[in-house]
Amino acid sequence: MPVQAENVKRVLVLGAGFGGLTFCQAFNCPRAHVTLLDRQNHHLFQPLLYQVATAGLSAPEIAQPIRSIVSRRKNVSVLLENVAGVDLARRQVRLDHTVLTYDNLVLALGGVTSYFGHPEWEQHAPGLKTLDDALRIRRQILLAFERAETTADAAQQARLMTIIVVGGGATGVELAGAFAELARRVLKRDFRRIDPRQARVILLEAGPQILPQFSPRLAAKAVAHLNSLGVEVRTRTRVGAIDDGFLLLTNGERIESANMIWAAGVAAHPLAQTLNAELDRVGRVIVEPDLSVPGHPEVFVIGDMALVRDENGQSVPGVSPAAMQMGRHVARIITSECRTGPASPPARPVFRYWNKGLMATIGRSAAVAQIGRLEFSGWPAWAAWLLIHLVFLIGFRNRAAVLLQWTYSYFTYKRGARIITGLEGSRELLTSNHL
Amino acid sequence: MPVQAENVKRVLVLGAGFGGLTFCQAFNCPRAHVTLLDRQNHHLFQPLLYQVATAGLSAPEIAQPIRSIVSRRKNVSVLLENVAGVDLARRQVRLDHTVLTYDNLVLALGGVTSYFGHPEWEQHAPGLKTLDDALRIRRQILLAFERAETTADAAQQARLMTIIVVGGGATGVELAGAFAELARRVLKRDFRRIDPRQARVILLEAGPQILPQFSPRLAAKAVAHLNSLGVEVRTRTRVGAIDDGFLLLTNGERIESANMIWAAGVAAHPLAQTLNAELDRVGRVIVEPDLSVPGHPEVFVIGDMALVRDENGQSVPGVSPAAMQMGRHVARIITSECRTGPASPPARPVFRYWNKGLMATIGRSAAVAQIGRLEFSGWPAWAAWLLIHLVFLIGFRNRAAVLLQWTYSYFTYKRGARIITGLEGSRELLTSNHL
Repeated sequence: MPVQAENVKRVLVLGAGFGGLTFCQAFNCPRAHVTLLDRQNHHLFQPLLYQVATAGLSAPEIAQPIRSIVSRRKNVSVLLENVAGVDLARRQVRLDHTVLTYDNLVLALGGVTSYFGHPEWEQHAPGLKTLDDALRIRRQILLAFERAETTADAAQQARLMTIIVVGGGATGVELAGAFAELARRVLKRDFRRIDPRQARVILLEAGPQILPQFSPRLAAKAVAHLNSLGVEVRTRTRVGAIDDGFLLLTNGERIESANMIWAAGVAAHPLAQTLNAELDRVGRVIVEPDLSVPGHPEVFVIGDMALVRDENGQSVPGVSPAAMQMGRHVARIITSECRTGPASPPARPVFRYWNKGLMATIGRSAAVAQIGRLEFSGWPAWAAWLLIHLVFLIGFRNRAAVLLQWTYSYFTYKRGARIITGLEGSRELLTSNHL
Repeated sequence: MPVQAENVKRVLVLGAGFGGLTFCQAFNCPRAHVTLLDRQNHHLFQPLLYQVATAGLSAPEIAQPIRSIVSRRKNVSVLLENVAGVDLARRQVRLDHTVLTYDNLVLALGGVTSYFGHPEWEQHAPGLKTLDDALRIRRQILLAFERAETTADAAQQARLMTIIVVGGGATGVELAGAFAELARRVLKRDFRRIDPRQARVILLEAGPQILPQFSPRLAAKAVAHLNSLGVEVRTRTRVGAIDDGFLLLTNGERIESANMIWAAGVAAHPLAQTLNAELDRVGRVIVEPDLSVPGHPEVFVIGDMALVRDENGQSVPGVSPAAMQMGRHVARIITSECRTGPASPPARPVFRYWNKGLMATIGRSAAVAQIGRLEFSGWPAWAAWLLIHLVFLIGFRNRAAVLLQWTYSYFTYKRGARIITGLEGSRELLTSNHL
């Protein structure tokens, strides 16, 4: 709860992702009270979300209760609430039940899946942003194999055993690699009528190259790795329509599939549209060099909701290190002004993005990594990926649990989280062939 | 799929709990084909289900894919299906899509929560039988504390922070102890407005003693332990009605609570009612001494669906060791007759239950155990409980993961699975005060 006493500065943070949480951890002004608001009770380690969707990790292994993370910071309150709207003029945020007044506002709500004007595709090809998304995708894929086992119709069987991932960015590549391994290695012995190794995994990318942020050389290595796992990679391939159980490409080709995942587009959280600020084409707020909203020096936007350009005019990518750096930057500004009084934006430090590099994994022992001018691939990149992700997983327990899971899966080709939950009361789920 | 060749004996097993799975593992006749059917894709380690409901363990830690458990038994097929009915005369089982014919049928579907003629209570006081039940209870309790934190109304707050467990058997005792620890130890630092240590946990038992299968001395120790954790234990207390947000006792007393869990009654799976066999008052099939259905020597009932009496005329309790022993017994009979030809029930071996003892845990370092005439309580019983449950957890990975979780929780008083899933798209869940 925001303390209402006269001298207390009320800082309101919307979103407990990497940006919002890092802000809370770096902010340090005794005469301020921070309220951290999220509509989930947990912080999500999003870089590993694809592992939950592909039955490699369980949901609690990549999530940590927000209250638990900030429990020692006595001047931080956590609220589990929906944001209904922001009123910049009155310095107020409307929630479902109440209204909160702030002195400083930090917007860190991240992004949502974008279907480029086709919201109707979502029901057939869900995106991957939350734990519930991941659990839904896991259930769908595992059920599809179960249905294939009991179906006599060969065409139906093929459709149930075809997985299409739309979008060749890091998430799409990681999903496609993990699905191929799930089918070809993990499930291969478990069925009697179908051979899961016959499953098709197709990765579709509209542009000329998968992993567009990587060099063409690394992207080619990624394609070779994916092919060796059995993934069909198709670049310059655009989706024209998605319907129940099939997808149409713009070239007229039709692909039958009961399992389509959308990893093609991300847009900023729609709250950005209500700020009357200038937005870029994916809805991000074009912020000042100090990350504040133009005309509102008391309001900051960080992470995937913000468009920031680095020294070369390149926009800062939507990755967790960028969000964390922004959270730390804003914490420094508000801490300093909380102690000495407000400054005008031009007098504030300018945000500079420190690019630590890019990584993407392809299956269980290959990856591509680009750190400055250095390029890695194969096993060394995978080992680096493993190390970095373990180090950054918040909370000791999760780190140990994830390491245990990975070690187990690595040596046994089994996956611990291959269970289907949420079946209850939904007999339809069990009997539908469309899933 | 059941192989249809002439000489192949078709064995159909309904239910992949402790009984059904043990049957599959012990059965050994090369000219038979076993079909194992369940409506979940996982075997559940039910003795630890209360830990998922109380946020101690994650769902995949106590569940293992059925296919994966039997993958090396090439003559066992697994089907994820609903059973629609059994036709004993035709030796057929109807599923949603198809009909399976059997030579031997093993019914091992376990039990369901029973509300003693008040099915309308279920929506207010869910039972705990499946992973989905446990995840729903976990979500409900964690959300109740979140709602209490944002509510100004003191009566509402008290209601949200009152947890009632109905039924003082082992499950009820374990739930009450774990909830008390969750509120008083795990959550205590995480809220700013409420003090989770003020939460009330009430355990209601209609009979004169909790843990009725234990000696009065051990039951009294359990009560003392529960009291020291802050649980109010009330015996000889009957529920008269349960409604939205409150419960009425038969003495007229009304207790307001947003969190009620029903652990008072178990009945056999309703399929037992369709067999035209004699049932006991909780719907269990009264089987022959060899565990077959009277008049149908080719059909067996095992586990919580069967009523079997031991030498002293006592009914065998509904615990996993009993189900496993029955599964092994029936596997021996069918294996032998598969190799040598059918025998009549009187010529078959009689099932004898070997009582290995009873245990129940109370919180994180106390338990009660009764093994023959030996009685333990406190720390030694808890250590024994820990060891036994770890040894019997199916699958190496789970065992290691659970041990890691427990060690972590033990030393830090944190719980790894304190995340709320399934909130998405259900704004109501976030805003309701009744939950």
